[in-house]
Amino acid sequence: MANPVAATPATASRAPGPASRSTAEVLCIGDELLRGQIVNGNSRWLAQELASLGISHHRQGVVGDDPAVLQAAVREASGRCGVLITTGGLGPTPDDLTTGAIADCFGQPLELRDEVLAGITRRYEASGRLMTASNRKQALLPRGATVIPNPVGTAPGMRWEPVPGFTILTFPGVPAELHAMWQQTAAPWLRQQRMSDGVTVSRLVKFWGVSESRLAEAASPELALPHPTVAPYAGTGEVKLCITAHAATTAAAEQAIAPVQQQLIQRGGASYYGCDQESPAGVVLELLGDRGHTVAVAESCTGGGVGAAFTAVPGSSRALLGGIVAYHNRIKQQQLAVPADLLAEHGAVSGAVAAAMATGVRQKFGASWGLAVTGVAGPGGGSAEKPVGLVHFAVASEHGTVTAMRQFGAHRGRDWIRALAVGTALDLLRRHLLNLGLDNNLA
Amino acid sequence: MANPVAATPATASRAPGPASRSTAEVLCIGDELLRGQIVNGNSRWLAQELASLGISHHRQGVVGDDPAVLQAAVREASGRCGVLITTGGLGPTPDDLTTGAIADCFGQPLELRDEVLAGITRRYEASGRLMTASNRKQALLPRGATVIPNPVGTAPGMRWEPVPGFTILTFPGVPAELHAMWQQTAAPWLRQQRMSDGVTVSRLVKFWGVSESRLAEAASPELALPHPTVAPYAGTGEVKLCITAHAATTAAAEQAIAPVQQQLIQRGGASYYGCDQESPAGVVLELLGDRGHTVAVAESCTGGGVGAAFTAVPGSSRALLGGIVAYHNRIKQQQLAVPADLLAEHGAVSGAVAAAMATGVRQKFGASWGLAVTGVAGPGGGSAEKPVGLVHFAVASEHGTVTAMRQFGAHRGRDWIRALAVGTALDLLRRHLLNLGLDNNLA
Repeated sequence: MANPVAATPATASRAPGPASRSTAEVLCIGDELLRGQIVNGNSRWLAQELASLGISHHRQGVVGDDPAVLQAAVREASGRCGVLITTGGLGPTPDDLTTGAIADCFGQPLELRDEVLAGITRRYEASGRLMTASNRKQALLPRGATVIPNPVGTAPGMRWEPVPGFTILTFPGVPAELHAMWQQTAAPWLRQQRMSDGVTVSRLVKFWGVSESRLAEAASPELALPHPTVAPYAGTGEVKLCITAHAATTAAAEQAIAPVQQQLIQRGGASYYGCDQESPAGVVLELLGDRGHTVAVAESCTGGGVGAAFTAVPGSSRALLGGIVAYHNRIKQQQLAVPADLLAEHGAVSGAVAAAMATGVRQKFGASWGLAVTGVAGPGGGSAEKPVGLVHFAVASEHGTVTAMRQFGAHRGRDWIRALAVGTALDLLRRHLLNLGLDNNLA
Repeated sequence: MANPVAATPATASRAPGPASRSTAEVLCIGDELLRGQIVNGNSRWLAQELASLGISHHRQGVVGDDPAVLQAAVREASGRCGVLITTGGLGPTPDDLTTGAIADCFGQPLELRDEVLAGITRRYEASGRLMTASNRKQALLPRGATVIPNPVGTAPGMRWEPVPGFTILTFPGVPAELHAMWQQTAAPWLRQQRMSDGVTVSRLVKFWGVSESRLAEAASPELALPHPTVAPYAGTGEVKLCITAHAATTAAAEQAIAPVQQQLIQRGGASYYGCDQESPAGVVLELLGDRGHTVAVAESCTGGGVGAAFTAVPGSSRALLGGIVAYHNRIKQQQLAVPADLLAEHGAVSGAVAAAMATGVRQKFGASWGLAVTGVAGPGGGSAEKPVGLVHFAVASEHGTVTAMRQFGAHRGRDWIRALAVGTALDLLRRHLLNLGLDNNLA
């Protein structure tokens, strides 16, 4: 717990001057964020973009549609960083006040930009909508600011250096507009500024069927590395270890990451399934495709979630034939040929019924593999014997049918239990395809 | 664009003293946020909680695992607000430094709290895990701080008033732990502080099948109201109008909201489907349940998404029998009795095949309603005649089968197209159940 940082005034904690001028900050503007009506996806997206540009980024902020608070935040940032990126408040309505508040903040008047007004007018005419006086507001920019054109909406942004060494980039809050403007104009400009003293590369190494604490224990030597750093993150069922390297070039960063990545994959044993954007469904589909195999699913408590996870992957039709959502017991009998006496004897949530569902859907669809899920997702329907969170799985193939059971815990709630059931079903099939054990064993 | 706020120093923009002491701020701590590896769900959740407690909240911040930057942010907040809520950095690993950095910030030493250490030890013993020296760190708190117990994890938080009138509440970054601790300890304490000068109540009025701009045009008188305020938000397919009222009591705020809510529902006509937490699937299930009807789904491009949306609603078994995911054309023929010549003549993505799928699944499952979706989700598989984003729908009942077609646009991408297809399928069934037109007409 040794903490070497002494209690010093805020302004002294990060020296002003060239160092801080090479960092960026993000400020998202909008009452909807402060009210919690939307999640701040723009902040995350910009953070990813800054990381990929290798630009240091120590702070993000959120303020509402309040000019005084917005101006205070902008003024503070002007003393700390070289580039401030704002989102939100560029629309035509009265609560869109970002441009005016920022101009006021630095004592600059707003000027009407004829070329911007002409662009807005054209866009309205093309869509047949009536342009109102309030739309003129979107063509007002402070003197000296450069327009960041908006190829997909009416609200342009600006790039403005109100004081030497401090540049503000403004964007609308609509994600599609922010992304298009960023990629067309802002990202190339930021690259030209050479703010980066190198690049930061991160690699996510992903595992399923192991607890964060067990994996962290197994990977403790890597977690203690000074560089590249390794940090654990728990997701919904999956556990991720993030390797981060900072180097002069992407190639050098990748070179630092590679041996650590291999080590972590070994530590994870059967629980390792993929890296970065790879998904459990994508990995299974690739394994199936490599073998020329097909799969059909039979779902009860997940209600189509396993099928939806498979079909979220482009090209999934190569291996996924389809499935049966057998939510009602009558449907389990009629559509999946689950014997009535099996349902009566064991109940719908049982290994025997899961096995019959997997076998049934495999035969019915003529698939190489049948995958079945049946469980108690809650909040109702639990009992002492079969509590909420209990889920049975089965994997059927020409070699027979294997079942597995998990107790995810009632405290997790319906959505989480269902998400864990989908991921676990996919993971069981992955382990079968790779002839791995079903235990949560590490290497 | 009149902006009355003059350019004054940051500290003057919000007067210190009693007014600012009644406001809260949120500070989320973690490199994973600055790297954009996770979206900041905690910020949103806390914003909603503060709003429901009627506590004003003008700022949110994010900093990384960097004591100097964290301390600067804490010190700034101490001059602005009465309560600072932090998340993250309470774990046992070296990058968990929140408690120590905050204590240093106000020149206070850390003390080992025996009762906290005993609790952590008990938790480790119960789970059979080995407790390490680093876990002792979690039992260190600054002198004078009160423990916020963690009922679901090892990391406790604290409530600490390092300077008069400024209280810090710390929580772990794990959402389940934050939520449990907040509800058990922090929320009751905040209620006792009487920081609220009233309550803010928001109501989301939700629509499907209408564009944001058309709805905003129809609701322009309400959007111009000074109180309660009405603001539009576009979601993935749905459009939301948010009514927000501030009043002395919840009842008074609700009374201000009610007539505006009724007016907006009228403006939306057939496109209005529900308020607040109501979902398209939940609304349809309720309509089905009220009528004693059942439904079965036949899905191609959504691959189980419609079934998953239905079964996300607790108690959905009352009306949902199940469904068939017919991803492969052979499965459409074998499992849904879609004639081979229909597939050959019209192709899988056609009104004729959608109708055959809906009729087929309805008959096969013995349901009151059959609901079918077939489309081109992309990125591949599109053609000039049937571009990516084209989706056909069908609703079958004892009165016959009706089809509908939507072109969601290839630029939206696979995930968005599939989400729009799921929502549109549910919305079509809703309109049928209510005998509303399928046009995107407003009242």
